Amino acid sequence: RNISTTQLNMSFLLANTRKILAIGRNYAEHAKELNNPLPTSPVIFLKPSSSIIRKGQSIVRPTRCKALHHEIELGLVIGQKGKFIKEKDAMDHIAGYVVALDMTARDLQDAAKSKGLPWTEAKGHDTFCPLGEFIPKAEIPDPHNVELWLKVAGESTYRQKGSTSDMIFRIPWLVSYLSNIMTLEEGDLILTGTPAGVSGVEPGSTLVGGITGLPKYDIQFSVTQQQPSAL
Amino acid sequence: RNISTTQLNMSFLLANTRKILAIGRNYAEHAKELNNPLPTSPVIFLKPSSSIIRKGQSIVRPTRCKALHHEIELGLVIGQKGKFIKEKDAMDHIAGYVVALDMTARDLQDAAKSKGLPWTEAKGHDTFCPLGEFIPKAEIPDPHNVELWLKVAGESTYRQKGSTSDMIFRIPWLVSYLSNIMTLEEGDLILTGTPAGVSGVEPGSTLVGGITGLPKYDIQFSVTQQQPSAL
Ligand SMILES: [Mg+2]
Ligand SMILES: [Mg+2]
Ligand SMILES: [Mg+2]
Repeated sequence: RNISTTQLNMSFLLANTRKILAIGRNYAEHAKELNNPLPTSPVIFLKPSSSIIRKGQSIVRPTRCKALHHEIELGLVIGQKGKFIKEKDAMDHIAGYVVALDMTARDLQDAAKSKGLPWTEAKGHDTFCPLGEFIPKAEIPDPHNVELWLKVAGESTYRQKGSTSDMIFRIPWLVSYLSNIMTLEEGDLILTGTPAGVSGVEPGSTLVGGITGLPKYDIQFSVTQQQPSAL
Repeated sequence: RNISTTQLNMSFLLANTRKILAIGRNYAEHAKELNNPLPTSPVIFLKPSSSIIRKGQSIVRPTRCKALHHEIELGLVIGQKGKFIKEKDAMDHIAGYVVALDMTARDLQDAAKSKGLPWTEAKGHDTFCPLGEFIPKAEIPDPHNVELWLKVAGESTYRQKGSTSDMIFRIPWLVSYLSNIMTLEEGDLILTGTPAGVSGVEPGSTLVGGITGLPKYDIQFSVTQQQPSAL
């Protein structure tokens, strides 16, 4: 799994994603809206790479999920393997960014939380990680100064709109912290948390979102209902 | 990621592991020893593939973990991609088996459970998934009739010894259930849960384990202490 610099493009990296690390409650207003305490250390969970979908694919709401929520997030694409990465070196390990949706079966998550169980089923279903196009690092000079937005197509107001300046745990610190637990590998993704405004989305709707000022990287994903023959 | 049949060997599969799905509380005696209720549906969590170690590598107890527990498990190696796999077809998707340790920072897990948080840090540290050699499917005609054992080298009694006949959720059903949530891919691993007897292991100790009657696939991993410079 050695990658030459010329191969560092989106299709290669995302074809080689092994782990998706996601941060929960990294925006204070979002933690509050779900009645969660503010974290004193990052809330970390894994999404499987099998949950990734790309342009043209649809989000599928599983039969057993009655409350499918959107969470728009800034994703970091790891371009250089590392362990025990120092905060000052963290940005060197990031190849670029991606607009990501951390789709969440909120009802399954609430049930898991109340029982002290993992969030795997709430966060890991197929199609629960829609991704936009690769954003080269130079396109975002300051990742703590971009605005994420999300709408349901046809609605006049934004569902989510928030600045990455409001992150509780910031990117270099997060990369360092995570890399002290596990080796970050080329193609791994880190979803950095969602701003306030998460809410339910119904089959038949289409989610649109992006980063203000970078329309080239807008995303658009329709939501469909899983056929009842499946679980 | 198409794999020809001739490439279906251990080194290839494990070099291509993307996700490790692990089942908690799949043996009644083990659920009881941790004072957990018996599950009515499988407890599913993810371990990152970066936690895999092989023969010759050591388990590292993280500085912040004071209670590192061993869990010996029968691992399933997925050899054929599938979604919505029927129970009757499940065994066709398994290429073989592997003796695995689901190393667990029990103190971090207890803290996470009490707060309704994910188990990622408890289960996902580097070195927390030691694996033995690939066991071809034909070597285990009935995966629900093998005995798993684990010892600390130098101790006279077994720490863990239990039969896979005691699994609450059985392999074909588990494969079907998991594949209804997420696509299983070539090289993915499923750790099927641990029998009773989990307990702490200290740096300086060596864990030995295996499947009774198949000594060729015994595993042996020493435990070391992470240097205090790290988190
Ligand atoms: Mg999220
Ligand atoms: Mg998890
Ligand atoms: Mg286990």
